[in-house]
Amino acid sequence: LALLASTLLVGFVSVILSLVWVFHYREGLSWDGSQGEFNWHPVLVITGFVFIQGIAIIVYRLPWTWKCSKLLMKFIHAGLNTIAMILAIVSMVAVFEFHNAKNIPNMYSLHSWIGLTAVIFYSLQLLLGFAVFLLPFAPVHLRVVLMPIHIYSGLTIFATVIATALMGITEKLIFSLKNPAYSASPPEATLVNCLGLLLVIFGSLVLWMASR
Amino acid sequence: LALLASTLLVGFVSVILSLVWVFHYREGLSWDGSQGEFNWHPVLVITGFVFIQGIAIIVYRLPWTWKCSKLLMKFIHAGLNTIAMILAIVSMVAVFEFHNAKNIPNMYSLHSWIGLTAVIFYSLQLLLGFAVFLLPFAPVHLRVVLMPIHIYSGLTIFATVIATALMGITEKLIFSLKNPAYSASPPEATLVNCLGLLLVIFGSLVLWMASR
Ligand code: HEM
Ligand code: HEM
Ligand code: HEM
Ligand code: HEM
Ligand SMILES: O=C1O[C@H]([C@@H](O)CO)C(O)=C1O
Repeated sequence: LALLASTLLVGFVSVILSLVWVFHYREGLSWDGSQGEFNWHPVLVITGFVFIQGIAIIVYRLPWTWKCSKLLMKFIHAGLNTIAMILAIVSMVAVFEFHNAKNIPNMYSLHSWIGLTAVIFYSLQLLLGFAVFLLPFAPVHLRVVLMPIHIYSGLTIFATVIATALMGITEKLIFSLKNPAYSASPPEATLVNCLGLLLVIFGSLVLWMASR
Repeated sequence: LALLASTLLVGFVSVILSLVWVFHYREGLSWDGSQGEFNWHPVLVITGFVFIQGIAIIVYRLPWTWKCSKLLMKFIHAGLNTIAMILAIVSMVAVFEFHNAKNIPNMYSLHSWIGLTAVIFYSLQLLLGFAVFLLPFAPVHLRVVLMPIHIYSGLTIFATVIATALMGITEKLIFSLKNPAYSASPPEATLVNCLGLLLVIFGSLVLWMASR
């Protein structure tokens, strides 16, 4: 499917752009309380929480998966979501450690409020998914009742994660572009605005595939 | 329905909070190239593009509407969306005039890129909606084919509009809170963060009702 190929491509280019941002325009990656530690935050969150979560959501819709057993599919879906969760948590640790090292307050911004809420709902979604759809205890009628809720909350959390990434990009560009400022549209601003646009396109493609 | 009541309440409180923000913490409303003109931007966009668009989307799902004829329903849906469109355009004029009066560049931010894209898609959606579902020219099979696309793009645009509002709130709080800064969490920051959370809740409730 051309649709699948473009979704993968857009997601892949987003990950690349986040790396270009961090290495070419910012301080690269490190884990020592410096800007380099902060930079793990956007990279891990775009790789894990956006790209891998997006793939996990559409995995049931991929042609090659129709050969697989339902149980294998569930393992792939649950496994990808677990990887996304781990990367998201590491990326949180990176910002919090960075903020503590620099004495910047935690959890003051709308970005952080909505971001943390999304992470909490995502972990509930993951636990509930395991408990109801993977472990053999839940009766079928419970599965049938919970499935529409699982799909609704999964897609809503995914959309919220993308909105959070857009707020984060906005904050970071305002904070770090001073001379020239964000409003003077230096190349870094244009590149990262394009990254933001790609995240919206990626999200729209995933929603389209998941609602077919 | 309790669900409907809470959706309306959350949307209504959002509109009130945007007015409290603008009148109690900011410069109020005016139309003279000053901050007061900028302030029309968040107020009109939250009232029209978020609240009224949200109501327009769920209007087919309201119990009292089941008595109405299909044609009347379409008029209400199309009418509310048209009002939302007009308010969104006036709110754009307000920021652009404000930027020009203050010599601030236009269209530099990710917020403005995604916001303008959303407005453009929204007007296409409105025109296509009129042409296909209201005017009597389109054959039934075309309506049937286009309806899932209409619903998908309507909901995706709505989610994008809310994401745009969250970016706008983030920008405005960073720009206008200097002493104390946003990171010091003054009361204005807390109030407006709550406004942002309410917009996310409003959006989630609308999506839930529209996908039942
Ligand atoms: C998409 C998922 C994301 C989530 C769930 C998320 C979550 C968070 C959280 C919880 C904080 C608060 C850390 C603290 O208070 O110590 C934070 C801070 C921050 N994030 Fe993100 N983030 C995401 C994406 C991004 C992206 C893509 C960027 C782009 C660079 C970014 C930039 C920032 C910045 C600049 C801060 C520090 C300022 C603040 O506290 O708001 N975030 N993020
Ligand atoms: C936070 C983690 C998770 C998220 C965000 C999530 C999200 C989603 C979404 C959006 C769908 C709809 C996909 C589509 O219609 O193509 C879905 C389907 C599904 N999910 Fe999850 N999910 C998560 C974890 C899990 C876990 C741990 C399991 C356990 C195996 C699970 C089991 C399923 C099943 C069985 C389906 C239905 C597949 C079908 O169409 O037959 N999910 N999930
Ligand atoms: C939800 C729908 C919204 C849309 C479609 C939208 C659209 C736009 C557009 C197109 C601009 C560019 C104006 C120019 O360049 O002259 C802009 C600027 C701005 N908007 Fe919004 N906006 C929305 C919501 C908000 C909200 C709720 C706020 C909160 C205060 C806000 C704050 C701002 C700010 C501070 C600017 C100036 C900085 C910039 O150009 O990014 N916006 N908006
Ligand atoms: C930008 C403007 C518009 C947006 C964002 C929009 C969005 C939506 C959405 C999200 C739905 C799904 C609602 C649900 O499932 O409960 C819907 C349904 C519908 N819309 Fe629109 N719409 C717009 C303009 C129009 C116009 C101008 C017409 C022409 C009358 C129209 C006709 C319809 C019809 C007939 C339905 C199906 C109602 C049903 O039987 O379930 N829409 N629209
Ligand atoms: O465990 C499962 O739950 C759903 C279904 O039974 C409920 O709709 C599904 O497809 C499974 O494989």
